Amino acid sequence: MGDSFGVLLTYPMDSYLEEELARRFRLFRLWEAPPGRRLGFLRAHACSIRAVVGNTAVGADADTIDALRALEIVASFSVGLDKVDLARCRARGIRVTNTPDVLTHDVADLAVALAIDVLRRVGAADRFVRRGAWEKEGDFELASRFSGKKVGILGLGRIGLAVATRAEAFGCAISYTSRSEKPHHPNYKYHSNAADLAADCDVLVVSCALTEETRRIVDRAVIDTLGPNGVLINVGRGAHVDEPELVSALVEGRLGGAGLDVFADEPSVPEALLGLENVVLVPHVGSSTWETSRAMADLVIANLEAHVMKKPLLTPVI
Amino acid sequence: MGDSFGVLLTYPMDSYLEEELARRFRLFRLWEAPPGRRLGFLRAHACSIRAVVGNTAVGADADTIDALRALEIVASFSVGLDKVDLARCRARGIRVTNTPDVLTHDVADLAVALAIDVLRRVGAADRFVRRGAWEKEGDFELASRFSGKKVGILGLGRIGLAVATRAEAFGCAISYTSRSEKPHHPNYKYHSNAADLAADCDVLVVSCALTEETRRIVDRAVIDTLGPNGVLINVGRGAHVDEPELVSALVEGRLGGAGLDVFADEPSVPEALLGLENVVLVPHVGSSTWETSRAMADLVIANLEAHVMKKPLLTPVI
Repeated sequence: MGDSFGVLLTYPMDSYLEEELARRFRLFRLWEAPPGRRLGFLRAHACSIRAVVGNTAVGADADTIDALRALEIVASFSVGLDKVDLARCRARGIRVTNTPDVLTHDVADLAVALAIDVLRRVGAADRFVRRGAWEKEGDFELASRFSGKKVGILGLGRIGLAVATRAEAFGCAISYTSRSEKPHHPNYKYHSNAADLAADCDVLVVSCALTEETRRIVDRAVIDTLGPNGVLINVGRGAHVDEPELVSALVEGRLGGAGLDVFADEPSVPEALLGLENVVLVPHVGSSTWETSRAMADLVIANLEAHVMKKPLLTPVI
Repeated sequence: MGDSFGVLLTYPMDSYLEEELARRFRLFRLWEAPPGRRLGFLRAHACSIRAVVGNTAVGADADTIDALRALEIVASFSVGLDKVDLARCRARGIRVTNTPDVLTHDVADLAVALAIDVLRRVGAADRFVRRGAWEKEGDFELASRFSGKKVGILGLGRIGLAVATRAEAFGCAISYTSRSEKPHHPNYKYHSNAADLAADCDVLVVSCALTEETRRIVDRAVIDTLGPNGVLINVGRGAHVDEPELVSALVEGRLGGAGLDVFADEPSVPEALLGLENVVLVPHVGSSTWETSRAMADLVIANLEAHVMKKPLLTPVI
């Protein structure tokens, strides 16, 4: 289709996506430029690059957008757009798309597994077996049940709802915060703020979008309210949580445990977490299945093709 | 109640159970006798011991039962009774109780978490983060989705049904084998044998009782039918599986992965499994939560008290 339509891929994500983009468009790979020279790389190709494909690691910030004067569309390989300067896109008339829906199941699956893993101490138990302790030291310590626990969901969007549906099958009572009360879910209990939600649950799941209102929404007060028997699951963004407070609470046992897919400064993870037995740490893999990756790639490409063909975008945000 | 009613505890299980038994009965602790002298210990107290409380590690085998001529009841701290010689109990008129229902939720929770953990490579991903590889080596590899997978259940009893209910909330199609087809669950697909079930599922969950019919029901043929994309979850008993065949298949990649709570020779675990990335290994902790442990202990005690008071047993098997 558009050999001359230049697309910037910001990060080496998915090989299928990269191949399919290269087959269709003139592809620029940002990571091939040395770290200190990326702005120069962008300026050098500013007349050619008309689309940016970013992800949760590297999106399209103000500098990138300003450097690309021919930019028409940002098609993100993610549902969250916190790494895209939406205000600047809006001001310049740049279209923005994301990949909703196709990753919902995977993120919700991971959230539920992390909750059970933390309560049941699956990771610690696996390490116990692998180091031969079962035979030498006897039975592993008792853990806590997941079924029937009260699950609080920060953000009852697509992902939050998918977590709720799954947790209901485990006999869990569901409560949530959201921008507004959801009348379609009268069996879920609404709270207007995170502190009230934390006071009414055993497991708190962060699944909201990262905005100025939700940045650091899980602060010391929320963590202390969850308390030594409480569990935090974060499948949102690292910046949703006051990470130094979270780390202290986990180290000191003021918080029972945490299952974390996201961190404040990825791919860096706080050193103090790495030796803890009450946490499960995974490297932002909420949507990292080949099934979802393929579906996300197809959606990114379909949005770009629709844009080039001047047809309606499939999942426009702007 | 019965200071003179002697109870043999076979294994150091749960401290609450031990204390409550000691408060009510004359308690004998089998593990206090040196390993080579346990039969002597039993014979020395044969006139006093009228009840045995065993578990999945040490139950009441033929030698134990034969040594205890005053034995009236075996109250097992487990649902499975494969460590109790039921034929001998029946012949001698010895009553047998187990602890059904109270552990169903915990075992089903663990089965689902293990399935997601194996497919999503949660344990491998946690090790990747903890060893600092995320920062040094880049993104973790893609995994497989759980939602929507076909889940096959070997044994649709209480635990199997609880697994099915949970898996349905993840959009999984359920099929099963069982002694007979279950007319109450027309949406679950019945297969008459394990090989047919394995051919029709992505994730095979072993949740049946261990009997002569189900011993090694997961053999090489079943494992090869599951194949390199298939996952085996065993929350039943180690003896349900041909363990050497399972280990070879996992090492050679002929089976995709496994989540194992039980092993053929517990607490020993095959050395070849300990370094594998496609397995999650936990030390028979299916019911090891403090909530369930308490409920199981209360049920063991209630059965013993009912027996002493000549009232109906709560959960009699014989």
